[in-house]
Amino acid sequence: MSNDKYVVGIDFGTLSGRAAVVSVADGQELGHGVKDYTHQVMDRGLTAGDGQALPPDFALQVPADYIEVLQTAVPEAIKSAGVDPSQIVGIGIDFTSATVVAAKADGTPLCELPEFKNRPHAYVKLWKHHGAFEQAERIVEVAKQRNEDWLARYGGTLSAEMLLPKVLETLEKDPEVYQATERFFNALDWITFRMTGNEVYAAGDSGYKRNFQDGKYPSREYLEQLNPAFGGVFEEKMPGEVLPLGAEAGKLTAEAAGWMGLPEGISVAVGNIDAHVTAAAVQAVEAGQMTAIMGTSSCHIVLGNELKEVPGMFGVVDGGIVDGLWAFECGQTAVGDIFAWFVNTSVNAGYYRDAEAAGVSIHDWLTRLAADQEIGEHGLVALDWHNGNRSVLNDPNLSALVVGQTLGTRPEDTYRALLEATAFGARTIIETFARNGVEITEIVAAGGLIKNKFLMQMYADVCKLPISVGLTTQPGALGSAVFAAVAAGVYPDVKAASMAMGARQENAYLPNPEASALYDKLFYEYTLLHDVFGRGGSSLLYRLKDMRRDGVKRRAAKHEGRYEDLDTTREQIAGGGTDYYPVA
Amino acid sequence: MSNDKYVVGIDFGTLSGRAAVVSVADGQELGHGVKDYTHQVMDRGLTAGDGQALPPDFALQVPADYIEVLQTAVPEAIKSAGVDPSQIVGIGIDFTSATVVAAKADGTPLCELPEFKNRPHAYVKLWKHHGAFEQAERIVEVAKQRNEDWLARYGGTLSAEMLLPKVLETLEKDPEVYQATERFFNALDWITFRMTGNEVYAAGDSGYKRNFQDGKYPSREYLEQLNPAFGGVFEEKMPGEVLPLGAEAGKLTAEAAGWMGLPEGISVAVGNIDAHVTAAAVQAVEAGQMTAIMGTSSCHIVLGNELKEVPGMFGVVDGGIVDGLWAFECGQTAVGDIFAWFVNTSVNAGYYRDAEAAGVSIHDWLTRLAADQEIGEHGLVALDWHNGNRSVLNDPNLSALVVGQTLGTRPEDTYRALLEATAFGARTIIETFARNGVEITEIVAAGGLIKNKFLMQMYADVCKLPISVGLTTQPGALGSAVFAAVAAGVYPDVKAASMAMGARQENAYLPNPEASALYDKLFYEYTLLHDVFGRGGSSLLYRLKDMRRDGVKRRAAKHEGRYEDLDTTREQIAGGGTDYYPVA
Repeated sequence: MSNDKYVVGIDFGTLSGRAAVVSVADGQELGHGVKDYTHQVMDRGLTAGDGQALPPDFALQVPADYIEVLQTAVPEAIKSAGVDPSQIVGIGIDFTSATVVAAKADGTPLCELPEFKNRPHAYVKLWKHHGAFEQAERIVEVAKQRNEDWLARYGGTLSAEMLLPKVLETLEKDPEVYQATERFFNALDWITFRMTGNEVYAAGDSGYKRNFQDGKYPSREYLEQLNPAFGGVFEEKMPGEVLPLGAEAGKLTAEAAGWMGLPEGISVAVGNIDAHVTAAAVQAVEAGQMTAIMGTSSCHIVLGNELKEVPGMFGVVDGGIVDGLWAFECGQTAVGDIFAWFVNTSVNAGYYRDAEAAGVSIHDWLTRLAADQEIGEHGLVALDWHNGNRSVLNDPNLSALVVGQTLGTRPEDTYRALLEATAFGARTIIETFARNGVEITEIVAAGGLIKNKFLMQMYADVCKLPISVGLTTQPGALGSAVFAAVAAGVYPDVKAASMAMGARQENAYLPNPEASALYDKLFYEYTLLHDVFGRGGSSLLYRLKDMRRDGVKRRAAKHEGRYEDLDTTREQIAGGGTDYYPVA
Repeated sequence: MSNDKYVVGIDFGTLSGRAAVVSVADGQELGHGVKDYTHQVMDRGLTAGDGQALPPDFALQVPADYIEVLQTAVPEAIKSAGVDPSQIVGIGIDFTSATVVAAKADGTPLCELPEFKNRPHAYVKLWKHHGAFEQAERIVEVAKQRNEDWLARYGGTLSAEMLLPKVLETLEKDPEVYQATERFFNALDWITFRMTGNEVYAAGDSGYKRNFQDGKYPSREYLEQLNPAFGGVFEEKMPGEVLPLGAEAGKLTAEAAGWMGLPEGISVAVGNIDAHVTAAAVQAVEAGQMTAIMGTSSCHIVLGNELKEVPGMFGVVDGGIVDGLWAFECGQTAVGDIFAWFVNTSVNAGYYRDAEAAGVSIHDWLTRLAADQEIGEHGLVALDWHNGNRSVLNDPNLSALVVGQTLGTRPEDTYRALLEATAFGARTIIETFARNGVEITEIVAAGGLIKNKFLMQMYADVCKLPISVGLTTQPGALGSAVFAAVAAGVYPDVKAASMAMGARQENAYLPNPEASALYDKLFYEYTLLHDVFGRGGSSLLYRLKDMRRDGVKRRAAKHEGRYEDLDTTREQIAGGGTDYYPVA
């Protein structure tokens, strides 16, 4: 048995938790474990309670499912790694962000109390729970009236997915649950609380998702203006200390050590947002680097030396990724989701047969056909707004369009146009940062889409930037392990740990100037449509959205308001919404 | 054996000829026969000659195939009708329009001469042959320079599908063929010539497709300005007389009677355009009626009391349908073609399985799902420009777009949006006629799409007009039979014959004001997109088309210019083109 040291990284995603045992010396991942959440996402019925139907914009989870990840995935990872648990010196975790847990002061979730078992607001509000639209609008409106200075840090608006709207929704929709709740946690802080007994909050998440800026929360006066009963929400229900990333949240308790089969008393790092730990996993820890986590949606993390206000950014936090740099978060609401939607709905069977005959996936097959075209040959340009637009327009009411079809347009043509639309969306973000004083010099890509080499080269050509790619297949778990190693004192800071344990292939894709020049022509058209339909040139998309909602209402009225009777997708009912962030 | 009289109507379509034996008393169709053309359409190789590869915009046919229809389909129809040939008193025919035959003075097609067997320009140029783009542009340009008064009769432009561009193309591309050609016929006149030995031209077709207006052709001076060798094209190569519709072209010769098993000497009516005879078959012979032949594309015939200049009309001819009324022709370049394209490329296998399980066609299945939506619920609006726009913009360079997709958009949503787009296209035409002094009070629909009751009700609601539907399944053959009965002297004029032999269900669909009001909102968006992208608000679609052509050229260059090596649809190469008219 060697004297090597290891850490455990745990990545809590939307549908499952994944654990990895990682060598602190070089970041090698020795073993993995995974546990699907028992209750998955409750978005139609309260299956963990009495099964009552849920409104169409609800997305709830069960906190005990997260504990099961500790009890199942971590022992599995240790076993498959074949290391002696005594050599494990720390734990780090990441979580879907703004996933809000209502609990008692001892951490007991409210939904575990018999009297609240059948109350939806007592459950975890998952990141993509969209019940708080009305509250989010009021939060922004009042903040604008009062010139609240924190608002600019969120691009001048606040998503309904943040903690504050979700908690205000609980107060206004189920005040009894609100009163009985002693602590509102984002789940990443709740899980470290359960592991350590220390009630501390992670600085990154607090800044991005909990309105904590420049060392303070929004004022009591502001909160009371939102709702007279809301003034003490932070003071009374979130009294813990905010700690920087890489800090130790506390030591592992005997109880939690028992769940996982780990030594009591080892370090537990403060939690982090799932997408954000990726930066550490792929060595994107310097100013000028943009980490692009490209999955169902895309999350972009841009590091800069100075605070700048960039239109459409989702949030900016001092030390939000690594101490000493400002970290800007922005993103695209749908990327892989668009491609998946397209192949699931809009590609005829012949293509599936051909893909099968060629022994490749439908995505690979369409990519192969698309790659055999000259740029612009399909005659199409699309907007990637199938799930609204996050950055830089920050408008969930937008929808997508495809322009240029003929009777000769084939699925591979539209597929390529959709790939391009997402690349143009990324370029729009990059150019907006540059215009506002934040220069981006390198994209470091991670996420499921980096497998598509044609797409990655397209992004390099379109964005005219070198693209490095992360080399781990589990950036969440590896990134969390980096923070665990820092918290355990193995490395002096996140940068040092990232350079030792993270891994990227530098300049995996370099822009081809000839292709860039051709893509420029299509990007010109994309920008034209983007600005006409997204910047007030035409309000057509808003009117379409209104008509969509009116139509659903008319049909619902015919069914006596019972949405469940309708053969209508949830997206149609929610009206598109802001199903943004993070990546699967 | 009764003393009933019968006529034969023959409908020469794009891929086959259909004959019907019809009672002159009431229009009852007693027997049918059909013959597929042996050589179909030669659009890749000259299969009737040496098999040489054809340019991508060529579409040729073989005249002997038409004679085979007489020899096969007519005897079949007579046999299945069970009537005595001696009771048949006349023949009428309709043909795809501007399908040009190059022949010697005795009617022998040039391609049947051994020395011209391998010369593409010696064959029939089918309506959708698109080799004469350059000539058509010059024809219009010179006509504008000279203020030629006939140009307004064609909406200020001239399609490359007309006779004149096709003949000029022959002169300029293969002068030897041009010199050896003693007669250029549209096929409808060639076939009556072959049946009667009389060289006469139909007034309707001559007006719409052969530039014959107000009793004359374009002047020699004009023609010489196009090409010095072109001045005598009408005088020398088209010396026949133009006769009104319903007139007798001549008597059936012994030879032609032998082909068909009919009595020698019976009346042969002057020919007519396939879409146009439909008006007679469905009793649409009064001012204010619009015959809408809704198939792969839609052809609209509007009857009015006065000559008006309507933007985007395809042609207007005095007595073009019935004597005494001006007949305006216009149309939509793709209707059923759009729906077919969509189901062939953009609908996933699950829908096909569901349709099969329900025992209905994929179109019926998608229609059923689409019909179960409220108006506007899909949140989409589309433009129906997949094959350019004929009326009212008259612009083959346009392409289609679909606006408003989300991740919840389903195939039935887009399918419905495409149905609606074609209805909005029809309404745009109707409103343009009304604004220009031609009031339309009733739509009389025919063609394959009238089977779709949901679509027909949608057209009534969108256009706010009553829709009657034709009752024959063979409007071409029945319509030709109406003209045969007039030519044979059974009826005094086309109106009387149409009312006796044609048939329509009046007011089969009446507009629903509530639905009309909701469709108005979508039509507003359609019009906005129509005018922005089609009337100069944005030249985006033109630039996309340029990029498409550039891309195809770059790829062709890599393949040394060999289009045949490219896995590219013909539409892509031709660049969309004006694949307009008539219907299948």
